[in-house]
Order: sequence, then structure tokens, then C-alpha cells
Amino acid sequence: MPNPKKAGLPPGTLVHVGERKIEKVKITIIDYGEAQFQEKEAKTVEECFPFKDEPTITWINIDGIHEVDIIEKIGNHFNIHPLLLEDICHTEQRPKMEDFEDYIFVVLKMLYYDEKENGVNAEQVSLILGSNFVISFQESEGDVFNPVRERIRSGKGRIRRMGSDYLAYALIDAIVDNYFITLEKIGEKIEDMEEELVTNPTPATLQTIHNLKRDMIFLRKSVWPLREVVSGLERGESALVHESTRIYLRDVYDHTIQVIDSIESFRDMVSGMLDVYLSSVSNKMNEVMKVLTIIATIFIPLTFVAGVYGMNFQYMPELAWRWSYPLILLLMVGIGISMVIYFRGKKWL
Amino acid sequence: MPNPKKAGLPPGTLVHVGERKIEKVKITIIDYGEAQFQEKEAKTVEECFPFKDEPTITWINIDGIHEVDIIEKIGNHFNIHPLLLEDICHTEQRPKMEDFEDYIFVVLKMLYYDEKENGVNAEQVSLILGSNFVISFQESEGDVFNPVRERIRSGKGRIRRMGSDYLAYALIDAIVDNYFITLEKIGEKIEDMEEELVTNPTPATLQTIHNLKRDMIFLRKSVWPLREVVSGLERGESALVHESTRIYLRDVYDHTIQVIDSIESFRDMVSGMLDVYLSSVSNKMNEVMKVLTIIATIFIPLTFVAGVYGMNFQYMPELAWRWSYPLILLLMVGIGISMVIYFRGKKWL
Amino acid sequence: MPNPKKAGLPPGTLVHVGERKIEKVKITIIDYGEAQFQEKEAKTVEECFPFKDEPTITWINIDGIHEVDIIEKIGNHFNIHPLLLEDICHTEQRPKMEDFEDYIFVVLKMLYYDEKENGVNAEQVSLILGSNFVISFQESEGDVFNPVRERIRSGKGRIRRMGSDYLAYALIDAIVDNYFITLEKIGEKIEDMEEELVTNPTPATLQTIHNLKRDMIFLRKSVWPLREVVSGLERGESALVHESTRIYLRDVYDHTIQVIDSIESFRDMVSGMLDVYLSSVSNKMNEVMKVLTIIATIFIPLTFVAGVYGMNFQYMPELAWRWSYPLILLLMVGIGISMVIYFRGKKWL
Amino acid sequence: MPNPKKAGLPPGTLVHVGERKIEKVKITIIDYGEAQFQEKEAKTVEECFPFKDEPTITWINIDGIHEVDIIEKIGNHFNIHPLLLEDICHTEQRPKMEDFEDYIFVVLKMLYYDEKENGVNAEQVSLILGSNFVISFQESEGDVFNPVRERIRSGKGRIRRMGSDYLAYALIDAIVDNYFITLEKIGEKIEDMEEELVTNPTPATLQTIHNLKRDMIFLRKSVWPLREVVSGLERGESALVHESTRIYLRDVYDHTIQVIDSIESFRDMVSGMLDVYLSSVSNKMNEVMKVLTIIATIFIPLTFVAGVYGMNFQYMPELAWRWSYPLILLLMVGIGISMVIYFRGKKWL
Amino acid sequence: MPNPKKAGLPPGTLVHVGERKIEKVKITIIDYGEAQFQEKEAKTVEECFPFKDEPTITWINIDGIHEVDIIEKIGNHFNIHPLLLEDICHTEQRPKMEDFEDYIFVVLKMLYYDEKENGVNAEQVSLILGSNFVISFQESEGDVFNPVRERIRSGKGRIRRMGSDYLAYALIDAIVDNYFITLEKIGEKIEDMEEELVTNPTPATLQTIHNLKRDMIFLRKSVWPLREVVSGLERGESALVHESTRIYLRDVYDHTIQVIDSIESFRDMVSGMLDVYLSSVSNKMNEVMKVLTIIATIFIPLTFVAGVYGMNFQYMPELAWRWSYPLILLLMVGIGISMVIYFRGKKWL
Repeated sequence: MPNPKKAGLPPGTLVHVGERKIEKVKITIIDYGEAQFQEKEAKTVEECFPFKDEPTITWINIDGIHEVDIIEKIGNHFNIHPLLLEDICHTEQRPKMEDFEDYIFVVLKMLYYDEKENGVNAEQVSLILGSNFVISFQESEGDVFNPVRERIRSGKGRIRRMGSDYLAYALIDAIVDNYFITLEKIGEKIEDMEEELVTNPTPATLQTIHNLKRDMIFLRKSVWPLREVVSGLERGESALVHESTRIYLRDVYDHTIQVIDSIESFRDMVSGMLDVYLSSVSNKMNEVMKVLTIIATIFIPLTFVAGVYGMNFQYMPELAWRWSYPLILLLMVGIGISMVIYFRGKKWL
Repeated sequence: MPNPKKAGLPPGTLVHVGERKIEKVKITIIDYGEAQFQEKEAKTVEECFPFKDEPTITWINIDGIHEVDIIEKIGNHFNIHPLLLEDICHTEQRPKMEDFEDYIFVVLKMLYYDEKENGVNAEQVSLILGSNFVISFQESEGDVFNPVRERIRSGKGRIRRMGSDYLAYALIDAIVDNYFITLEKIGEKIEDMEEELVTNPTPATLQTIHNLKRDMIFLRKSVWPLREVVSGLERGESALVHESTRIYLRDVYDHTIQVIDSIESFRDMVSGMLDVYLSSVSNKMNEVMKVLTIIATIFIPLTFVAGVYGMNFQYMPELAWRWSYPLILLLMVGIGISMVIYFRGKKWL
Repeated sequence: MPNPKKAGLPPGTLVHVGERKIEKVKITIIDYGEAQFQEKEAKTVEECFPFKDEPTITWINIDGIHEVDIIEKIGNHFNIHPLLLEDICHTEQRPKMEDFEDYIFVVLKMLYYDEKENGVNAEQVSLILGSNFVISFQESEGDVFNPVRERIRSGKGRIRRMGSDYLAYALIDAIVDNYFITLEKIGEKIEDMEEELVTNPTPATLQTIHNLKRDMIFLRKSVWPLREVVSGLERGESALVHESTRIYLRDVYDHTIQVIDSIESFRDMVSGMLDVYLSSVSNKMNEVMKVLTIIATIFIPLTFVAGVYGMNFQYMPELAWRWSYPLILLLMVGIGISMVIYFRGKKWL
Repeated sequence: MPNPKKAGLPPGTLVHVGERKIEKVKITIIDYGEAQFQEKEAKTVEECFPFKDEPTITWINIDGIHEVDIIEKIGNHFNIHPLLLEDICHTEQRPKMEDFEDYIFVVLKMLYYDEKENGVNAEQVSLILGSNFVISFQESEGDVFNPVRERIRSGKGRIRRMGSDYLAYALIDAIVDNYFITLEKIGEKIEDMEEELVTNPTPATLQTIHNLKRDMIFLRKSVWPLREVVSGLERGESALVHESTRIYLRDVYDHTIQVIDSIESFRDMVSGMLDVYLSSVSNKMNEVMKVLTIIATIFIPLTFVAGVYGMNFQYMPELAWRWSYPLILLLMVGIGISMVIYFRGKKWL
Repeated sequence: MPNPKKAGLPPGTLVHVGERKIEKVKITIIDYGEAQFQEKEAKTVEECFPFKDEPTITWINIDGIHEVDIIEKIGNHFNIHPLLLEDICHTEQRPKMEDFEDYIFVVLKMLYYDEKENGVNAEQVSLILGSNFVISFQESEGDVFNPVRERIRSGKGRIRRMGSDYLAYALIDAIVDNYFITLEKIGEKIEDMEEELVTNPTPATLQTIHNLKRDMIFLRKSVWPLREVVSGLERGESALVHESTRIYLRDVYDHTIQVIDSIESFRDMVSGMLDVYLSSVSNKMNEVMKVLTIIATIFIPLTFVAGVYGMNFQYMPELAWRWSYPLILLLMVGIGISMVIYFRGKKWL
């Protein structure tokens, strides 16, 4: 939900908007070229500054965005527009890509399936792609970028031979790959629900369907704009993205479309589940009504007959007859049986 | 709703259409440059006129639009097209932006969440952006522009160093920021409703959902066109909007998209709530039916049995047997218990 | 609904399709320039012909389109394409604009709210805009153009100083302004319905909602294409529409969008009303069921108890006890009260 | 529904796919110019061939497409691409237009309202428009083209003075005009249904609504692509379509849009009917429930009271009182009346 | 559903994602020109390599994609981009077409209707079209390409005279033709369901409708992107696709649109079926309620009357009257008959 905390402040004022998810801001620097590699954790933000002018590729990763002065210092040193710094600190951004000639700014959403809360959570990731550096901002320390780190460390694959644009691609790719994990979790949950729907639907099922629907609305809002972001990078005019990287971005774009397709399919499925739920509630009610109707329509007439012969009139000749009691009992059995046959004919039994 | 009061009048006739929300029209003038600053309340509309030709930036704010001759005088002096003056007075405009080379005309909706009426209200704000002035028209005195005034007075931020286009941006930004406050209120209300839905849905809940839906329709109508307005300003050809301001407008554009996204999500949620409400009404009915069915199906057969032995036939040998009464009582208990077991099997108990 | 009366005839055959709404065709001619003004009712169609070549602006208004030879004569004299004459006579046109260099052809729908039939009615208006004349065709004599006539007569406003394009604009504007009146009527009816929905929904309410829905479908069909018509005039290449008139057309365009917005909002509201109606029917049913269940579940067990002691077994020792009758009565009261408490707990009472 | 009969065959293999609707293929040739006219029925397909090179306009109409060798011979002589011949024989084409410089190929659907089956049927019509000939293929002998034939024979209208493109236009126009007849039938049926809905809805009504819905899906599928077909002809680059014919095609285009509009309106209406049907079923159920509830809640308590005094306790002092019986009867009447008053208050009676 | 198995791996890593559908990979080579023809099964992947440089057209078909080193070797020899190889192995691709100047890469879905699982299954087919070769990858050995093989072997039709683009077209055409078979199966199932709906709807019917809906979602996801794929091939700039082949691709495009149309129609039908199902459940419930109400409202009052005369008051003069019993019986019959007449009036009987 949008946050009005900042309404009224001049644009470019840095205020952290969002939950504080980490205690202390952690800055890690990975600097590499085809031949060299260096990794360190920076104690002060100033340690990052010298890397700006080195020819090697530098990846500065900042976990925690609640200390706005750190963001501000980096912004000043790397000449980042104040509005972007504001966006970085404000965790309710819509995914977007902005091209400022000297650098490209990308905001993405990282998605987690939170088993405890049984729902999808998001975390904002901002990337600044310069000609020889990438700065990434995360809300908390995550393990989603670890495979990328590992690839840089080991020198496996293309990553050490390519530029900063490939690094940015690798990070975006890691995030999009992570979506598949979240989607798989949701897919499993939907399958569970579908079984539950058939075997034992309860009002709690409805609540879960409703929650799934909200998750879908949330996912959709987080992922749809990504399409434009990635295609903006791929088809953009920016000199920062090399031709050789574009084909990789096209691959990410395909994945994004796949994610969107899956979300849309899930939405359709969840809508269908609601229909099935409502129908099965109707069916159950129908069944309840049938039982009531069968019992009532068999016994109400019988009770009436019994009532008639319970009347205390003095002149009721049948009462004195020898065989009237067994005959009445037979009559009752007859009424009962014919009712049952009638219900069979109606397919209610 | 559209207002037919004006049907038949020649175009360009000034008639105030809408509720009169303020007693007396109030005109305030803020004139500033990088070094100077002047603020005054104008007693007559003519006091505004000299500022037209001064090189400093002038912001003329008019609270109250029901005195059409004031609008007309300003229009004449600042060469505003009569149709625009008409639009200013007619409070049922759709947000729009029109570029007349010498000036740009913008109509927006300011949104308030009215706690008393439990719904969203709107007020129309019109802006005229000239090369060295901005004229803003509000329906009533509002506090939404106060932070902008404050920034001009204190000289904080960029505002004193930038042109009239930046002032127009700041005003639009203030309005859009205000949307977030309104949305947050609605968001809270939706959350309240969702809890109420689960714990205790009543017909009043339905009414509230219906009202929320209407609010959403209203919000949508007020905010969707804003997207085009802001993107029109940002991407427009007008020389009145400088390159340096466009990036700020892009920021407002992002916010507008965020607002629209939130409205769409809210719409989806409110639709979902209706489904849940209907289902929970169905569920309640189901529960009621079950109780009825259980009671009726247990006791109707038993009552029948009692009725049988209440018959007054002379030859009912069982009546004379010593143990038939306790045996019948046992039989009844047996029927009751087997019914309960049957219902357990059906998961109705 | 489309009318198949003409299927099979060669194109360009003039056949009046539609209801005959007026007895006799009435032709009025208004001829004006900045200085002169002349108004007369023509007895024969030939009286209109001389005005074709005069430099003054001529407005020929024809009320009634069922006498096809009048249409044909005008068409021949003013060189109108036969297909257009066909369109004029065929009252089931979709609003459209066609540019034939020498003249522009416009078909519109005039909307009336028919209080008697409680629904929206439409009448077709065709306009032919030439360089110095406008010919308008109406199905019946209407008062919607009266304000325009008045303005020409009095010479108020711009109309006498502008060309035939401005006259055409004024006529279109008069029609669109009239939509607002119709929409207001519908808006009032929707508000009435919404109150009725809450206070006393009946099956008749459903019928009215259904009729409103049909009206909306009809309105939509009549107004949507108007958007293209007006924007076609405004943005078109035609030399017949002067630059100075385009801004007025833009104004009409804005009004059209507003009308469409209102229709869409009304549609949404009417859809919402159906949901509310259905829910309130469900709610009522629920209430009925509750009353039944409460009565039945309280008295069915009690009746059973009474039935037990109505049995005629010889050995029922309780029957002979001194206090068993009052004790049984107490027991029954106890059962009844505990049932009531149970229902209170379930919030059914 | 698509037909898989051909899956696996090489493209261009002629196989008739569809129902065989006519016994023998019938070939008629109409050859005309401004002055001459000739009409004959061809016994063999070869009789058509000489007309290919004559300067007069020739219309070859083939009723029946199941004898593929006839199609093939014509195709070879007139140089038609094999894929088109395949399309002509395959009656499940989507309406389309293809421009092969030398000729234009058009596939359309002719629609009939089948009174017997109470539904819409379609027949495929293919047209090949060459510079001096039109070849039309129909599935069976129809009377839809008769008015065109009549116009050619009589020489009325423009048709004899215009080229083959005008003939193609006239045929398409005849088909589209025929749609209006079908739509009118459906419109009547919808109106009938709406009355039935209000007066006496039965499960059969539901079935009819469902069938109408299917008809609408079918109509939509048949008519939507027509829009592109006609606009393709009108706006296309082909030298085969002359400027003077384009205005007639624009007229057909307008009619097509009108047809589509009507179909969309009908769809909306049919959807609305389903809602009304469901509501009226709910309403009826509600009414049934009310009757049951009223009867049950009045008599169940009364029966209980009667049961109490039917108990056989020895010590029930009331039983011996002189006035207790009439008093109890009065009490029962009192309970009954107060129940009725209560229901009146609830507006159930 | 997307598969997260690969998340974290560097791009271009070959991992088989999907079910293993075949034991051993099978490679078949068909090499042909207008005059020659050669077909063989390759034992090692290296046998394919020499064909790369021969002027004849070579079709290499690989059944089974789980042995990634085979894919890799082919990729290296034919200079295929590693990302494409990854796509080939990853069976959850969205249909797409990518043009890499030297070759075109196409991914498609082959659809099967699985009678056992009563649902639609898909298999991924990838094609690489080079200037003189086509490489096709299937998940398992299928018979869908057999007709194409047959045509090449027999030299019937155009295929031996045309290039590799025509071969690729023929393969795509075979796949799209196969869709019609699947659609026909689904169409039959829908028709079966519609009959079942009318004659005997059960909760299992609901489940089947739900499954059909899921199949439709799945089909839609598989076929929609195909539209772009085929139109991309047809309208693309690639020199690999000759002008003469484009007309065939346009034919496939038409078929694709037809498939999409059918899927959309099926979707609409299935949605309609759900409505009908729900209504018929409602109708059944209504019928059950009516029976209950009729029985209950007839007998409850009668039982009450019997109860009254079962009371044990000492002073009930009627009890002693001679004719009161038969009169009471008559009264009861009267009440019963008037009830029946009342229900007839309500059309419940």
C-alpha cells in the first residue's frame, strides 16, 4: 500500500519508508576483471569511492537502506540524481527502469514465499548500472545473489570476461529465477487446495482461496511492470548495454513473460476454485435439504395417521375392530415404501 | 455526475456549476525569485495584474470559484481562452491538460476522505502555467499547498531557483501526494472490512462493500485521466516546461501509476470481498439448515413412534405388555443415537 | 435493432426506415452573416436552392425524413452522394463522420429520457456541412436547437461572426449538452433505485435494474462512436473546419469523454446494484429460514416429549406420580429456554 | 468446430470438408456490359473458360463445392493458387481477404436462422475477384444473390456501368444485408424470452438462454473477422478495386460495424437475462420457503399445545376444569392470530 | 508450471528440465534434393555433422532431449547460441521464434488429448532452421511428422523442390494440424457434457467442467503465443524464408487463428456450462423444497386438528357427538384438497 509519510516534503528528501528489516547496514565490494578478483566488506561507505574510477568492474552491494546518509553519500559520490536516491529509500516503488545516459537505474521486487504467514512477501532491490560498476541496494541480507557471487569468485562462465551490464543482467536474472521458486510454492498450495476442495471444503477453504487471490493481485502488481523494465533494457538505446548482453536480456524477458503467464493461469485457476467452492457448498446444502425432505415427507403423513387414531371421539368404529391396528401398521409401512420408491424415481436416494 | 445547468448557453459563458464551498473568494499572491520573496493577500483582483509583466515568478492562488466575474477579469488580463474560464468554473471537469503555446492549462481533482460521510470527496483544482506565473484555482481554502508555500518562504530546496514550471510541478506533486493519504484511509477501511467479514458479516457489511465499490468507481474516474495529463506535460513539446523539470514530472508520473495500481488492487480486493460475503451468507444458511435438519430428522421419527402408541385401538397387545414402555423408550434412544452417528459420518456434527 | 426492410434493394435507393414521428415535413431556413439575418419557413424544397451559391451562411433544417423525394431533391441540388441520402433516411445509423472534400457528413443520435416509457429514446440527426451552408435533418420537430437559433437571431456570442463550421459545432454541442440532461435523469433514477434496494427490494426492483442495464447498453452504443466522430472533425484534414473552430470541437470532445465516463460509471453502479439485490434476497431467505428453524427446533422436541406421555401403555409408572405433570412442564420450559440460549449464542436471535 | 479430416495431407490437396448440402453442382454464368447481357447455366465447367479473356464482366456462380475436380479445373484455368482452392472446399474457414495482385480472394459466411433447429446456421461463400470476372462459390443454391441477379438483368442502378469490383461489392453487400434479417429473428426471440422470463420462467427457459448464448458465440466468430475483410478491401492497395467503388465498400463497412454492435448488444442482453432468470428462481424459492415457514410456525406450537393436553398423566387438574377446553381453543386462535400479525409486520404476508 | 530446478546456475548451462519420456535418444537424418533422397538412423551424433556443408536439404530429427551432451555437440557444430540449447532442454518454454541471421529458432508445443487422464498433454518441439538444414527436437518419438516424412520419401507435392524453409513450414503445419484433432476431442467432450448437464448433472459434472476449464487455460497458454511465432516467420525480414514459402506460412497463420478462435469459443461454452450447472442445482433444490413444502403444509394443519381431538379434557362435548368423527375426517379431506388447489394455483404441482 502506498505510504503517505512523505506527503508534503520537498522532492529529493531522503526518508526511509518501509519496515526496517536488518539491524546494521552491510556494504560488500566485489571488484573483478578477467584476471583479477577482490572481495571485501567495507566498514565505512567511503571505502567504496575509489572504485568509481578504476577500470575493473566493481559491484557494491548494500544490505539495508534505512540509514539514509549512507545512501546520500554514495549518491553524491557517484552523481546519482536525488530523486533516485529517494526512490531507493522508499520501498513501495513500482518496478521501473530509468536511463540517465551515465547510468541506468532499475527497481525490482524480490519475492519470497513466507511459510509462516502463508503468503507472498516482497523486498525491494534497486540497481545502478554505470559503465564500470553496479551498485545494488537490498532491504535485508539475502542469499539470492549468492550464485552470482560464486560465479564471479570461481571465474566460471562468462561473467568475468563481460562488462558491468552483464553483471546487472546476472543480478536481474537471479531475481527472476527466484520468482519461479515462489511460483512453484504457490502452485503446490493451489494443488493442495484443489484436493481439499473436492474432499472436504470448509469455510477456512474459502479464506485460503481469498488469500491466494490477494497474493495473486500482489504478485501481478509486482511482476507486470517488470516486463517493460527488461524490454526497456533490451531494446533501449543506452550505450551502457552492449549488443552481446542484449541476447541474455531477451532470455530474461522470456522468463518474465513465462512468470506473467503462470500468474495469469494461477489467477484463472483460483477464480475457478471459488466457483467450485460455491458450487460444492450449494451441493452440500442440497444434500442436507434432501435428507430433511425425505425424513419429513415420510414421517409427517404417518404421524398424521397415528394422530387420527389417537383422537378421543366416542364413535370411532374402527377402534373396536379386531384387525384395524395391524392393518393400520401395514398401511403405514405401505405409505413409507411408496414414498421411498417415489424418491428413488426422483433420484434422491 | 454531469450537470445540465448550462445546456443551451453559448460556449464560453461563465456559470459556476457545483456546490459553493466557501463564503468569500480569497486571492493570495506569492512573488519570488532566487533572492527576493513577497507574499500578500489581494483585496481586489486587479492587484494581481502588475505581476504579469514582472520577471519574477508569481503564484496567484484563488480559493473559491463561484464569483465568475473575478475569473473573467483574470482571464481577460492574462489572455486566457474563454472556454478555459468556463472549464475552471465548471467543477465537473475530467482531469485534462491543454497546451496553448503561451500557457498550459491543467485541471486536476483533489481527493479527500470524508470521515463523516465515510466516503471520498473531490475538489477541482485548475492551474494555468505561464512563462513567469502560475494561477491556481481551488473550490475552497485547502491546506494541501501549504508545504509548497512553506518551501517558497523558507527558500529550502530547489524551488526558489527554478521557474514557473517547477512551481506547477510542485503543486501537482502536492496533490498527487495527497492521494496517498486518501488511499491509505481506504486501505485501512478495507482491512477493517476484511476482519469484519470473517468475524461477523451483517447486511450492513454488504452496504459498506457497495459503498467502497462506488468510491473505487469514483476514484478511478478521477485518477485515470491524470496519467495522460502528467505524461502530456512530461513528454509534451511545450517550451514552457524545461528539460530539468521533466525528470520531476516523470517522478510524479511514477506516483500516478502507483496510485492507479493501488486503486486497481483495491477494486480487485473489494470484488473479492463481495464474493466472500456472499459465500459466508451461504455458509451461515447452510449451518442454519443443518441444525434444523438434525433436530427435525431426529425427532420426527420418534414423534411418529410415540404417536403410534398413542392410538386408541382396542386390540393393541403391546400396550398391555409389562416391558413394552421401557423397550420403546430404549428403541427411541437407539434411533436418536444412530441418527447422531449418521450425521457424524456426514460431518454435519 | 437493425432493420432488414431494405435487404435486396440496390445501394442508394431511398427508403425511410424507422418510425414516422411527425405528420408533415417542415423546412426552415436561417440565412445570416455578420450584419444580416433572415429566417423563413420554406413551403417547397426548391426555396432552399438559391442559398447554395450565396456567400452568407445558410442553415437549412428539415424536420421529418419520411418523405424521401424531399431528401432526394436536396441531395441532387447540393451534390450529396446517394449513399449518404440513404443513410439520412435510415434511422438506425451508427454515429459517424465522413469527409467528402466538398462537404462533411455527420450522423448523431439525439437522446431523450422518456418519462412515460421509463427509458431512453433516441432520434437520429444528420448534418451536412458545406463551405457556406449546414443542412440538418431531424426525425421530428425538436427544441434542442432552439438556443442556437436564439443565438443567431440575437447576434449574441461569436456565432454570427464565424463560418458554417462553427454553426455545425454549435449544433453538435447542443446535442451533446442535451446528453447531460438525459444522464442526470438516469442518475436520479439510479439513486432512487439504490434507496429502494436498501429499504424494500421486490422482484419489480430486479426488473427496473434490468431495464436500466438495457438503457446503458443502448446509451453506450449511441455515444461511444461519437468520440471518433468529434475527434475526426477536430483532427481531420478537412479545409472546411477552420483552426479557430477546432478548439471548440476539442471542448465538445471533452464533453463526449465526460458523457462516456458517466455511462461507464453508471454501468458499474447498475452491475453493483444487481449484486446487492441478489444478496439482499439471500439475506431475506436466510432470515426466513432462521425463524422457521428457531420455531421448529424449539417445538419439535417438546412435541415429542408430549407425545411420549400421550402413549397408552398400561405400565407407565410416571403417569401415576403426583408431580410428574408439573415436572414435565418444567422440563419443557427448560428445554425451550436452553434452545433460546443456544440460538443467542449463535447470534440468530 | 475445426475439422481434422485433412491433418497429414500435403498443403494444396483438395478435400471437401463439411456437410454435403446439395445433390449436383450447378454452374451459372452471367456475362454483361453496359449494353449487352447474357445468362446461361453451364453443363460442363469448361463452358466458363472462354469468358476469362473477354472484356465484358463475367460472374460465374458455383452452387455446391463437394466435387473437387470442378473446383480444381476452374482453379487451373483462372490461375488460382492451390491453397485458395483448398480454402474454398474447406467449409470451416474464418472470413478473410487475401490479395494476390491478379485477383482478390474473399471468404465470407452467409447466415441463416433455422426455424426448425431454432438456431443460427452458416454457409460458406468464397469470391474470387479478377479484373473482368467474379467467381462465387456457395455450399448450396441460395436466394440471397437473387436481387443482384435481378439488378443485372434489368439494368437498373449502377451495376451494369461499373466493373467487376462493383459486382463483388454487390455480392458482399447482399450477404451483409442478409445478416440483418438473421439478427432481427434473434432480436424477436430475445424479446419473446424476456417476456417469458417475467411471466413464467422454467428450466426450459434456461436451456433457451444457453442456446442463445451459443448462437451469439457462433455469430461473433462468424462476423468479427468480416470487419477486417471489408476494411482490407476498402483501404487496400489493390488496383482491382477502383476509387469509385471504395465509397460503397465503406458503406458495407458501416453495416458490418452495425452488425457487430448489434451482436455485442445482444450478448449483453442475453447475459442480463441469465441474471434475471437466476434471480427469479431465487425469488420463487424464497416464496416457497415463506409459505412453508408460515404454515409450520403457526401450527407447530399449536400442535405442541394439543400434545400437552393429550398426555395421560393422572394428575392434570386442568383436564377436569369446565372451561379449559374452550379456553385452550381460544389460546390457540390467539397464538395463530399473533403469528399472522408478526408475519404481516415482517411483510411476509 | 515453471520449474525452479535451474535457479542459480549460470545462463547457458544445459540441464534437462521436464519428465523423461523416452528411454534412448534417437537421431534420424533425412537428406534430400529434387533428385536424390537418403534416410538413415544415426548411431552417434557425429554422423549428422557432414550434412551441415552439403548443398542438399537435411532434416535432422532428435527424439529425446534428456541427454544434454548430444544437444551440446550439435549446438557446437552448428554454431547454435548456448541460451538456445538451454531452451531446447527446458521443456517449459513458451512458444517463441528468434531470428539469429544464420538460423531461426522456433519453439512450439505439440498437443495430445490423453484419453487415460482425460486431459490435454503437451510436448515441446524445437526447430532450428538453417539455410540448408532443419534440426528438430522432440521429447519423445511421435508420429505427427510421419506424413511429412512420407511426402519427402515419395516425392509427392512440392516439398522436394523447395528449400529448408518449406520443410520447417511443413513441420509447423503438421503440428498445427494436429491441434485440430485435439480440439475435436475436446469439442466432443464438451458436447457430451452438455447433454449430461441437461439429463443428469452430478457433482462429478462440476469436477469435469472444472477440468475442462483448466484444459482451456492450458491450451490458451500453449497456443496464443503461436500466433506471434507464425506471423513473425511470415512477416519477418529473414532471408532464410523465401517469398514463395510465405504464402504457406500465411495459411498456417490462418489455421492458428482458427485454433485460437475455437479455444475462445470453447472457453465461452465451458463458462456457460458452469452457469447452467449452477442453475440446475438451484432448480433441483427448488423442486426438493417444493415437495417438502407441499407435504408439510398439507399434513401439519391436519395433524394439529387430530391433536386437538386427542386432548384428554373431560368436557369436550364434540367427542360424544355421533357424527363428529366422520365430519372431522371430511373437514380434513377438505383442508387437504383446498391446499392442493392452492398449490395448483401457484403452479407448484
